Amino acid sequence: MSETIGFIGIGSMGAPMARNLLAAGYKLRVYNRTSERARPLVEQGAQLAATPAEVAEPGGIVITMLANDAAVEEVVLGKDGFLQRLATGGLHISMSTIAPATAERLAREHEARGCIYVAAPVFGRPEAAAARQLRICVSGPESGEKLGAANVVKVAGNFMIASAIDAMAEAFTLGEKHGLDRGALADFFGGTLFASPIYQNYGKTVAERREIPVGFKAALGLKDMALALQTAADAIMPMPLAGLLYDRFMAEAAKSRFDLDWALALAVNVAEDAGLPALRAE
Amino acid sequence: MSETIGFIGIGSMGAPMARNLLAAGYKLRVYNRTSERARPLVEQGAQLAATPAEVAEPGGIVITMLANDAAVEEVVLGKDGFLQRLATGGLHISMSTIAPATAERLAREHEARGCIYVAAPVFGRPEAAAARQLRICVSGPESGEKLGAANVVKVAGNFMIASAIDAMAEAFTLGEKHGLDRGALADFFGGTLFASPIYQNYGKTVAERREIPVGFKAALGLKDMALALQTAADAIMPMPLAGLLYDRFMAEAAKSRFDLDWALALAVNVAEDAGLPALRAE
Amino acid sequence: MSETIGFIGIGSMGAPMARNLLAAGYKLRVYNRTSERARPLVEQGAQLAATPAEVAEPGGIVITMLANDAAVEEVVLGKDGFLQRLATGGLHISMSTIAPATAERLAREHEARGCIYVAAPVFGRPEAAAARQLRICVSGPESGEKLGAANVVKVAGNFMIASAIDAMAEAFTLGEKHGLDRGALADFFGGTLFASPIYQNYGKTVAERREIPVGFKAALGLKDMALALQTAADAIMPMPLAGLLYDRFMAEAAKSRFDLDWALALAVNVAEDAGLPALRAE
Amino acid sequence: MSETIGFIGIGSMGAPMARNLLAAGYKLRVYNRTSERARPLVEQGAQLAATPAEVAEPGGIVITMLANDAAVEEVVLGKDGFLQRLATGGLHISMSTIAPATAERLAREHEARGCIYVAAPVFGRPEAAAARQLRICVSGPESGEKLGAANVVKVAGNFMIASAIDAMAEAFTLGEKHGLDRGALADFFGGTLFASPIYQNYGKTVAERREIPVGFKAALGLKDMALALQTAADAIMPMPLAGLLYDRFMAEAAKSRFDLDWALALAVNVAEDAGLPALRAE
Repeated sequence: MSETIGFIGIGSMGAPMARNLLAAGYKLRVYNRTSERARPLVEQGAQLAATPAEVAEPGGIVITMLANDAAVEEVVLGKDGFLQRLATGGLHISMSTIAPATAERLAREHEARGCIYVAAPVFGRPEAAAARQLRICVSGPESGEKLGAANVVKVAGNFMIASAIDAMAEAFTLGEKHGLDRGALADFFGGTLFASPIYQNYGKTVAERREIPVGFKAALGLKDMALALQTAADAIMPMPLAGLLYDRFMAEAAKSRFDLDWALALAVNVAEDAGLPALRAE
Repeated sequence: MSETIGFIGIGSMGAPMARNLLAAGYKLRVYNRTSERARPLVEQGAQLAATPAEVAEPGGIVITMLANDAAVEEVVLGKDGFLQRLATGGLHISMSTIAPATAERLAREHEARGCIYVAAPVFGRPEAAAARQLRICVSGPESGEKLGAANVVKVAGNFMIASAIDAMAEAFTLGEKHGLDRGALADFFGGTLFASPIYQNYGKTVAERREIPVGFKAALGLKDMALALQTAADAIMPMPLAGLLYDRFMAEAAKSRFDLDWALALAVNVAEDAGLPALRAE
Repeated sequence: MSETIGFIGIGSMGAPMARNLLAAGYKLRVYNRTSERARPLVEQGAQLAATPAEVAEPGGIVITMLANDAAVEEVVLGKDGFLQRLATGGLHISMSTIAPATAERLAREHEARGCIYVAAPVFGRPEAAAARQLRICVSGPESGEKLGAANVVKVAGNFMIASAIDAMAEAFTLGEKHGLDRGALADFFGGTLFASPIYQNYGKTVAERREIPVGFKAALGLKDMALALQTAADAIMPMPLAGLLYDRFMAEAAKSRFDLDWALALAVNVAEDAGLPALRAE
Repeated sequence: MSETIGFIGIGSMGAPMARNLLAAGYKLRVYNRTSERARPLVEQGAQLAATPAEVAEPGGIVITMLANDAAVEEVVLGKDGFLQRLATGGLHISMSTIAPATAERLAREHEARGCIYVAAPVFGRPEAAAARQLRICVSGPESGEKLGAANVVKVAGNFMIASAIDAMAEAFTLGEKHGLDRGALADFFGGTLFASPIYQNYGKTVAERREIPVGFKAALGLKDMALALQTAADAIMPMPLAGLLYDRFMAEAAKSRFDLDWALALAVNVAEDAGLPALRAE
């Protein structure tokens, strides 16, 4: 096995993940479309690759953490893609949130070249990545499940999170319109029936309905709901709650609020439909 | 203050609540439309009243735990209703899940007669009632909030629970159609992102999709979603997720599956729309 | 049979209907909650009644054309209601858009007093009323159908009209966002596949998306979609398209655009969700 | 200009269209994936081509009428595609229902080779094709609109038709559950407010809810609603009514009723959700 791991995708998630690998003593060769973002890692000892292919060594390991299906397919199979160079015995740990069908197509391409494709999407935001607290779903050729199983879990999970956010947005807005305090509702439900990280963290964002640093953009929320609908279509089933969430994110996109945090975007969309201002006054 | 408390509504929730009061040393005078159901309490020392009015003493305390708005209005204001007899200084603790608007109307009727109406709906199922673990939301004339505030919280909470159930039903069915195990999904999400009682308890029901003893009927789920939509209409706002849940419960009603547990009913409705059998084979 | 017909409800629909009756030689005794609106009819020869009861003669005919269920119930059965005075042999032609269940309840009340209740809701706007071109749906004790059958037809019809308006609003907005002309789309579809009055008349309003004299308020659209949902609930069935329309009207209500024409309100709601200005620039 | 027209796609629509061209005196060279279906045309004088490329002559005319975007792209640009052979001065009249974005991409490919791509999707079923009564929407390089404009109109139109069918399905089912006759409702609405071909023809299918020869499959209905949602996404807008229709078709697909006529499929889906049998008893 190679001594140096290839790492492609130095975004808000990939950067802390790569940093942790360096800190744990691994050697990294990194690639990012805009190489600027890789500079801090280089200063910490990583080598910079000029193309995706350069990060790979024959029979080595490559980790990818990218924004969407097209980006993953490009670095694997595109001009300068790494799969050909990774070659027999190589291992690709694919951590992006992509469609199960894309994962399965990629897995077959890897298998045809004697490589192993492991689907390993993660739950967790940048802070969790930095704190080594990501939850990683894994499926691969030896898991006994479909190759895209981990991606199905990831798609299902993001759908469930968005559903919880929307339910809070509608419930807290119902409270606000009846004179109750949104924060008190978030505290009550997050402290009792729904005492779990998702309700507690997103509950605060939904309750405050004020601009915050973006953890996960509404644009990615839309992408994920589209993924859920596509994954449902591949299995031939309707998923109307995913459709409702897709429509809310799409309306926010139409209203040029695509860069808001996704939980804030849902809160804003519900509030406006209820005749309230998009953001709460200070 | 009276020495004997009146208690109206000896159903699956009211019975264990009344039993606990007796066990704690309170004297009870109980009324139930079908007096048969009150017999075990009488054997434990409660007095049986022939009408709602009979449970009350002037200036005393009456607790009600009934199925819907109409039932509460009937025992309070109907022929043989208790409000007139409760009279000045009396206290009515109203624990049923009813509309905020109904609660406010009832509160005004009490006030006009010198009585106090306290809205005190509860979260929890019969087992929780028996174990004295109900969560009680309270609003009354001294709470500084609207008189129906506790009812808004209760309505919002049941809406959030149904939303979580539906999200699980769609997500687990997505998994099943892709070859994953529903129970494994329930365990994963209930043990990580959504590690809270609602997801853990209902997650099991949704994952198994088999007949179970009914905790809370689909008929009551429909009633609660209708309450959410009415409460939203009173405040002039749409609540499309509540509408989606209402439609699912209504379809189950149309299909004569109104007596299923509400979480099972949602799981069944989602499964059938996905072309799966209503209940899973053994 | 009485020589003078009672007429209750001199609104935008009732006024031209009553005027036509006078013009046709009938004697009228009219009542309206705000008597001011009845003045023009009085100048044309109608008598003014001070209460609903006063319009009726024992065994005579009363026509009602009111805004909603509560208004009809009030003039029939409320304090000063006319039913008691109408008495044996009387005939009530009830032309308002109300719930089938309300119509059936009223029909039983009439029957108990020896009167006949005829459900006769109408399709058509004030101009059609003036031009004697209303379409009247009729059901009564001799029609062989349920007493509320005519009301079911009316409720179903208004739902179908709103559905057509919404479909045009989404389709024309899709065109506009792709650079097509809304008016050209309205002309094309209204002149070919959908060459019928509903698509032609409302299509113009939806395409122009500019303020117009109000034919039928969004507030009445909301009322009618709520009627559809209630009528569906009475028969135990979901009606998700009615739910979607209800949510759109409710959002317009929340945004204080309740007084817009109902077709304009739907067009505006769709446009805003698509990121377009509510009304088109001149 | 070439003397012989190429015609690709001899399905239920293409066959009568090609037959009419032959009858009008045009010479045709035809291609169909399963050549069997082209035999009747050959007997009427058409030449049979073995590949898409073979139908084209340099600078000639090719007409395509295929099932979906992929099929059109394959015959134009795939192995044995005709575009290269059509060459400078050639004209491609593309009559399939495809995405505006696909049409625009194809148009650019044609332009790059000196050919003209005319988008010419049609409204009408096989009987209309046979009777030369199709309505053809046309946009091309000289129309002054976007190249895909005709496709937007076609996508919008099919969405409007499906909306009308669904509205009738919900309305007639509401009537049936209240004891009214579905056929009488179809006659009433089709003869008055909605007196247009779409409501009259599909109204009959929806009202009868019995197996009929398939005019347009539910599978194509699903494809068209997916096209509408994709066309809306390309323009960044939600289209919730298209989403509702998509979900209904998808549920019918999941229930293995994908080969039903699309209007029947919607009627069946609405009926089952209302607790009625899928098809009406004889």
